[in-house]
Amino acid sequence: MSDGDVGTPGGLRGFMFPRSATGRSSLVPAPPWHYSGQMLTIEYRTDPAAVAELLPPPLGPADEDPGAVAVIWADWQSCSDTFEELLDPVRAQYIETFIVVRCRYRGETYSRCVYIWVDKDFAMVRGHHQGYPKKLGELHVTRPVTVGLAGPRLEPGGRFGATCSAYGRRLIEATFTITGAAPSAGFVNGHPMVHHRVFPTIESDGTDSMHELVTMRGYDVEVGPCYAGDATIELYESPVEELTRLAPVEMIGGYWQEVGTNWRAGTTLERRLPT
Amino acid sequence: MSDGDVGTPGGLRGFMFPRSATGRSSLVPAPPWHYSGQMLTIEYRTDPAAVAELLPPPLGPADEDPGAVAVIWADWQSCSDTFEELLDPVRAQYIETFIVVRCRYRGETYSRCVYIWVDKDFAMVRGHHQGYPKKLGELHVTRPVTVGLAGPRLEPGGRFGATCSAYGRRLIEATFTITGAAPSAGFVNGHPMVHHRVFPTIESDGTDSMHELVTMRGYDVEVGPCYAGDATIELYESPVEELTRLAPVEMIGGYWQEVGTNWRAGTTLERRLPT
Amino acid sequence: MSDGDVGTPGGLRGFMFPRSATGRSSLVPAPPWHYSGQMLTIEYRTDPAAVAELLPPPLGPADEDPGAVAVIWADWQSCSDTFEELLDPVRAQYIETFIVVRCRYRGETYSRCVYIWVDKDFAMVRGHHQGYPKKLGELHVTRPVTVGLAGPRLEPGGRFGATCSAYGRRLIEATFTITGAAPSAGFVNGHPMVHHRVFPTIESDGTDSMHELVTMRGYDVEVGPCYAGDATIELYESPVEELTRLAPVEMIGGYWQEVGTNWRAGTTLERRLPT
Amino acid sequence: MSDGDVGTPGGLRGFMFPRSATGRSSLVPAPPWHYSGQMLTIEYRTDPAAVAELLPPPLGPADEDPGAVAVIWADWQSCSDTFEELLDPVRAQYIETFIVVRCRYRGETYSRCVYIWVDKDFAMVRGHHQGYPKKLGELHVTRPVTVGLAGPRLEPGGRFGATCSAYGRRLIEATFTITGAAPSAGFVNGHPMVHHRVFPTIESDGTDSMHELVTMRGYDVEVGPCYAGDATIELYESPVEELTRLAPVEMIGGYWQEVGTNWRAGTTLERRLPT
Repeated sequence: MSDGDVGTPGGLRGFMFPRSATGRSSLVPAPPWHYSGQMLTIEYRTDPAAVAELLPPPLGPADEDPGAVAVIWADWQSCSDTFEELLDPVRAQYIETFIVVRCRYRGETYSRCVYIWVDKDFAMVRGHHQGYPKKLGELHVTRPVTVGLAGPRLEPGGRFGATCSAYGRRLIEATFTITGAAPSAGFVNGHPMVHHRVFPTIESDGTDSMHELVTMRGYDVEVGPCYAGDATIELYESPVEELTRLAPVEMIGGYWQEVGTNWRAGTTLERRLPT
Repeated sequence: MSDGDVGTPGGLRGFMFPRSATGRSSLVPAPPWHYSGQMLTIEYRTDPAAVAELLPPPLGPADEDPGAVAVIWADWQSCSDTFEELLDPVRAQYIETFIVVRCRYRGETYSRCVYIWVDKDFAMVRGHHQGYPKKLGELHVTRPVTVGLAGPRLEPGGRFGATCSAYGRRLIEATFTITGAAPSAGFVNGHPMVHHRVFPTIESDGTDSMHELVTMRGYDVEVGPCYAGDATIELYESPVEELTRLAPVEMIGGYWQEVGTNWRAGTTLERRLPT
Repeated sequence: MSDGDVGTPGGLRGFMFPRSATGRSSLVPAPPWHYSGQMLTIEYRTDPAAVAELLPPPLGPADEDPGAVAVIWADWQSCSDTFEELLDPVRAQYIETFIVVRCRYRGETYSRCVYIWVDKDFAMVRGHHQGYPKKLGELHVTRPVTVGLAGPRLEPGGRFGATCSAYGRRLIEATFTITGAAPSAGFVNGHPMVHHRVFPTIESDGTDSMHELVTMRGYDVEVGPCYAGDATIELYESPVEELTRLAPVEMIGGYWQEVGTNWRAGTTLERRLPT
Repeated sequence: MSDGDVGTPGGLRGFMFPRSATGRSSLVPAPPWHYSGQMLTIEYRTDPAAVAELLPPPLGPADEDPGAVAVIWADWQSCSDTFEELLDPVRAQYIETFIVVRCRYRGETYSRCVYIWVDKDFAMVRGHHQGYPKKLGELHVTRPVTVGLAGPRLEPGGRFGATCSAYGRRLIEATFTITGAAPSAGFVNGHPMVHHRVFPTIESDGTDSMHELVTMRGYDVEVGPCYAGDATIELYESPVEELTRLAPVEMIGGYWQEVGTNWRAGTTLERRLPT
């Protein structure tokens, strides 16, 4: 069955809502999805308790470096398997800023996104599908350039800034200065993801219609050279955020890398059915 | 249990994701939600087959006037039961444009939103909770005024325009001219809603983790005077929409009204569990 | 000559750039312009020196209450004399937040806008025409409602919030609570405006191509009832603003009123020609 | 004198409005400005009369290929001479879409921008300073990538899409497919610019306060390899545009190139003073 057809005679078509007779209106096309972009990763350590409080059973803190956090800006171009979005780039391009921690599940270490903002609706709901708790924000990250003065070169001394705002409030500000090369872009976001996918019942009484623990990773990942360096980060208050609970205690460093990846499916690990 | 706490010892708090230790980061606060706004309703008839193709089993066409469609612009201020959002109006205000049809379920007539756009993230995902398949768009509707020349008066001759765009393409344009009063704002959106709440499995193979038929209505609804009049509407093409399938065959009319309503919960009618 | 035709044989048409053969592309249509909207005015006193430093010769401080400041949110619908924009409301609606002080020129008291943000391009450049130094921002102000719980009533106790952000930073936050009626909406913005209209030479060496002192006021002003009350305001830092220099020392009060006005032309008081 | 100080004792500081005591609030910092970006140029021929009608005296059509038009998407990072904007990239990054023709002035061939849209306020008014008649729009252009499937490579077959929308209407759509290399990115935008800088009097009676003919070019221009290829373009209608008057009659081709440039000043060629 193709395109997320729900398998019901006369059923509507479309991977995601709104489902329709043709499937054309779906906010998110069916996977696989292809991504090419630039990722700036800032890693630091916070109080391990601040990470632990974001890990519900059956998850626990990572054995090593349980307070490690990554804040990542990813400046993406992405598309479905028709590649049509690349010719209508409003439907392909977006930036996301996400905060990742590590955790332990059944003896394995996983990465887990705890907070994340994007600036396009298709990216937001595609993220919900993958268990990323995406909200909308105003996100910017410096791009490297090869000509002219208005941007860093990918070499020692190259300086980057990155910001995340929502509802007109600045939430996160970071800087990154290249000092050299690195074998990989940090370690916090380096594991398969383990996410919850949750959705409350329409009875809205504290019960969930969907409450799953899932894991996933991309495939055919292709990366460019990785640049490492020094980083700074500041987290700010908002009436609808709690980022300052993850305030940095010790900086680890920063990394910049071009990344190509693809996503086809994840795996449901546990599922709590609604009663 | 309050605020959508998931009931798990050590469980995260928050009505909607992202859930956290405090619940403060939740994209949508727990109900009840309160709404006050202005609604412009344009009703027309399309080919009944164009409506029927959007109604999957167990739904069927309405017995009477099965091709009736309403396109509604609602210019809302809304808030949770703390009312705090009213003092930070970026978190309270949004416009939505939605297309509603009628259908029959177990012998009763219901309204059903088939397509809808909003311009704030909290409104988008709150809509997903209620089964409204919301996407983001650029929405505008004329407001009535009481002084000056730059707006219609709420009296015969008062003229309104309304538009809906997404991804930089104009999708819908409408006009409305008041001719007199009406007892109510049309009939298409006048029934309790019957919606599907669907979410694909992370296996992304055409199966759903959540597949529910739900119904709901607001409570303590309070309306102002209702103005009726003549209306025009045009639907345009987009590579990710199929609105022209609902092209008008015969206009019915338009209505304008101030509406206050509240929402606490809906009811799950049917649920298909994931296997 | 109509529509700002520049009077040159073969000259392009259009009130504002881009001028063209038809004048149709002009960012701003020719006056008169009509406005209907809601204005929330917050008045306070700052250090008079903070006002004086914003008044270049030939302007001086007002004789009385030289430290008085008004911060105003205006939620407008506006149009040209064709009224066509009212049926395409994306071209009619905008919000502006502006900071006004008073000053003295040739023995008369004037109002003067020192900082201002809007959220539409036509409003921005129309403001430049009138000497309002408009920048783009993210602006919100609570609207009063007549039904439902999600908004204040226009009566004692009615509470409003208002915010102004730019570049993802919150710049101004205010609240207003109605206590009663007032004969008018404060005093700071109550005089004809005296503005500079400046534009640097393309030689960009500190000289100006346009450097004028102008005055203007609306005509056929029509207002609704005026509500007065208590107000709070906070101004925040930004690397490209200096609002904290105008920090409140003493609150005066707040006012809410519906306003209809019209604008046709201003008067050039002084003009310094480029050499 | 630095930073556009107007040279008046007690005068306000700031290159552009709003001028203030510190100059910090200025919407546009003083030049020089530095730019690094990616430019997609689509060239075609239209009816020469459609170009000629946009060239007021003292300008005339180019001697050769008078109907040649370039439509350019430039995806920029830019900054002032402090380079601070590069660390707050919301103040550095923007995209612009501009339409350029050629003309003749005093025996020399110049390029001239007739219509242009940007998506940030500092870029808009900085453009006004340079005689670019900038309006706001929603602009997107595909970026080349080096890893992954979601973007073209800079090699034959690499495909790009580009769009320009304003007020929720799609105005321009283009595609470009690399076929090989080229010595330079077309010819239409290859000359120094000759622009008008105009601003109506506040008397708004068809007279101008500023009416200048200016020329300018960047300095220290640095370009990357230039890729040429096939292009398509479509121009659409809008009530506030007249782009279809420049409809393509014959495609010339497309070009993609990285560009670094800098801008310090222009030269006033002619100035008509207000009376």
